[in-house]
Amino acid sequence: MSKYKLSQIGERMNKLTGVRAIMKDIMETLRGSGAKDFINLSPGNPLILPQVEQLWRDITNELLNSKEYGGVVCRYGASQGYEPLIEAVVEDFNTRYGLKLTSRNILITPGSQALYFYASNAFGGVTGDGQLRKTVLPLCPDYTGYGGVSLNPDAVVSFRPHLEIDSQKHRFKYRLNLDTLKIENDTGCVIFSRPCNPTGNVLTDDEVREIARRAKAVNAPVFVDAAYGPPFPSLNFTPLQPIFDEPIVHCMSLSKAGLPGERIGIAVGDPSIMEALECFQSNACIHSPRYGQAVLARAIKSGQLVNISEEVIRPFYRKKIELLEERFDALMPSVPWYLHRGEGAIFAWLWLDKLPITDTELYQKLKAKGVLVVPGSSFFPGLRDPWEHTKQCIRISLTASEAELAKGVEVISGTVRELYRDI
Amino acid sequence: MSKYKLSQIGERMNKLTGVRAIMKDIMETLRGSGAKDFINLSPGNPLILPQVEQLWRDITNELLNSKEYGGVVCRYGASQGYEPLIEAVVEDFNTRYGLKLTSRNILITPGSQALYFYASNAFGGVTGDGQLRKTVLPLCPDYTGYGGVSLNPDAVVSFRPHLEIDSQKHRFKYRLNLDTLKIENDTGCVIFSRPCNPTGNVLTDDEVREIARRAKAVNAPVFVDAAYGPPFPSLNFTPLQPIFDEPIVHCMSLSKAGLPGERIGIAVGDPSIMEALECFQSNACIHSPRYGQAVLARAIKSGQLVNISEEVIRPFYRKKIELLEERFDALMPSVPWYLHRGEGAIFAWLWLDKLPITDTELYQKLKAKGVLVVPGSSFFPGLRDPWEHTKQCIRISLTASEAELAKGVEVISGTVRELYRDI
Repeated sequence: MSKYKLSQIGERMNKLTGVRAIMKDIMETLRGSGAKDFINLSPGNPLILPQVEQLWRDITNELLNSKEYGGVVCRYGASQGYEPLIEAVVEDFNTRYGLKLTSRNILITPGSQALYFYASNAFGGVTGDGQLRKTVLPLCPDYTGYGGVSLNPDAVVSFRPHLEIDSQKHRFKYRLNLDTLKIENDTGCVIFSRPCNPTGNVLTDDEVREIARRAKAVNAPVFVDAAYGPPFPSLNFTPLQPIFDEPIVHCMSLSKAGLPGERIGIAVGDPSIMEALECFQSNACIHSPRYGQAVLARAIKSGQLVNISEEVIRPFYRKKIELLEERFDALMPSVPWYLHRGEGAIFAWLWLDKLPITDTELYQKLKAKGVLVVPGSSFFPGLRDPWEHTKQCIRISLTASEAELAKGVEVISGTVRELYRDI
Repeated sequence: MSKYKLSQIGERMNKLTGVRAIMKDIMETLRGSGAKDFINLSPGNPLILPQVEQLWRDITNELLNSKEYGGVVCRYGASQGYEPLIEAVVEDFNTRYGLKLTSRNILITPGSQALYFYASNAFGGVTGDGQLRKTVLPLCPDYTGYGGVSLNPDAVVSFRPHLEIDSQKHRFKYRLNLDTLKIENDTGCVIFSRPCNPTGNVLTDDEVREIARRAKAVNAPVFVDAAYGPPFPSLNFTPLQPIFDEPIVHCMSLSKAGLPGERIGIAVGDPSIMEALECFQSNACIHSPRYGQAVLARAIKSGQLVNISEEVIRPFYRKKIELLEERFDALMPSVPWYLHRGEGAIFAWLWLDKLPITDTELYQKLKAKGVLVVPGSSFFPGLRDPWEHTKQCIRISLTASEAELAKGVEVISGTVRELYRDI
């Protein structure tokens, strides 16, 4: 332990929440593995697709050969974001979605995690008169990072969903439970991912509109995390239209469109929400890095980014999920196993009903057999009530090669067979 | 006002603190000026020096022509920072300063403002048992941003310095007041800039060691903001050696070495302090942008950055401060005016003792005459006791051309002459 005393906020932020603790174990496993080869189905890190890398290389070359470069990297910028990027987003969205956005609807952040950090603490947390305003996750599982962004451990709450089960086909889908979902006067803001990391779930338009309706009634903004959604990286495998009704803030990330290293998030929403977040950003870190913003502006303006998303990134991962589904269907024993419907994102989510051991124990067993997955229990941030389901799931990354995925499913299926036979 | 209710933290961060409010007025003035030409002596934005821009262009070209590029921008990275950059800093500092640093002593942040944001809130703020731990600024004036980084308005405290005055030469220097400086059990951390923005003051080695001694006695880390210091950008005009005694964290920024757009801060200090800040960063924004880190790693390794700092950046600004001093000496009327000793940074700091109006009124008067400066009262964050001196100073940026600086001093001198004649 450090001799330097931390504040309450410091203690809170000193914890590695959720999946980060597991990722640390995985990193150490891989580092210490020596000759042993692991099939790594754990990464949230997208693969480098050659066409995507080439896009960023080409645009960077253009930028370097232009006069713009010096003004981009050698100058401070506006807290709101790099003006040509803001303009590019406004024009693209107005054309693509028939909107009437102006630059005041846009904020650029250093990654979308930072955006949720601002949101969760500007709108959630304790008010001047001592009320605790919640960051509501309407259903779980959801992105594990939402558990780490709040400076107040008690502010994040999430709700248990319905399960829509197709027993015969071994598929299921999480559905919003409207009877238990509480979006009330103490709701500071709402956050959810669509498509969902880790499950690939896409909330229906009706579900999103109902969340927005309830949030609007109590003046709480709704942050829809579209890190996997259209218009880029377009990692939805079912049709999905972004929804722009107030009080929704449509939040994008460049991490799955090939620029995770540059940390760029984009928020599109009501100007008064954007301004509050911009001020937070101005005080916390001045502005977002500009090289990434400048190349992104060019990639949006030229239409290349949307094209490559739909023609390269989406098909690449769609093929992976199809292969994985086919392999599970072929190899799994007749136990109550269910894959979440693969509606988007870069993960598969496997639920093993009545699993005789915990998800973490299963993670260890698979690790011993050379396959790394992520135990599902990390993905229920803010859920207070015990629910055995939280210990019956694993997340499988689609970033592995087809051969690795096939081999991984073989090992998982075999392990599951042994486990259920023992009971 | 927004209909979306903010938490206490949200309200706090929604304020544009200190100099940002003035900067907004200046931006609007310049935007609305039409044909009127302003001499702008307000910017904190460094100039683009051609040799510096060329350095970053050349290194970016190298990066683009290497295999490294894809792994830099197309992958997530470690929260601690880009490994080759961490290695480069370790090697450079161990050689340059005879240290025995390892990678555990280093943390890369998305700009040094973010570093102070983490520090101020991880070590300062309310503890689990309700104590308010302070962020201590040992003397003011100091960087206005320190007022904005704390999520708790009451946590930032600063102390009134001694004034060491050379009446004949119209020069002065702020000196630490050791009798009143309180670094006690409720001190969470200490922050100060050296060289100082806005004054150009360089605290002496003895002053720094005394601050560190007192902070060590209460286990509080000391963040020395070397955004203008050696080894880059080396904007010290007097000899200055960084001090690495525990509990000092040596904090650097790339903003004045030509990369403000990319937001890169570097902290060098005790591993337990680095770890607490790294965890905060991991939860708040995952990691710092990597393009800037990659080019910086190359610029440090090759020695080019230190060379260009000492041979281009420092002489450029040193010439400016010498010109400005010469002009003030030649033109100022015989009133009690004092320039702070120009020991570093990119500003001059003028104190007008017994100024008949406030600094803000003087700012308005100068603006009406076409000269933009920054009123000094923004630079006393955390000072509770009234002190007339806080309203008798202006900050003058050295980023203007020599002709503009000369003309600016003429206008300032003329205005001062009128003001004191009227009393």
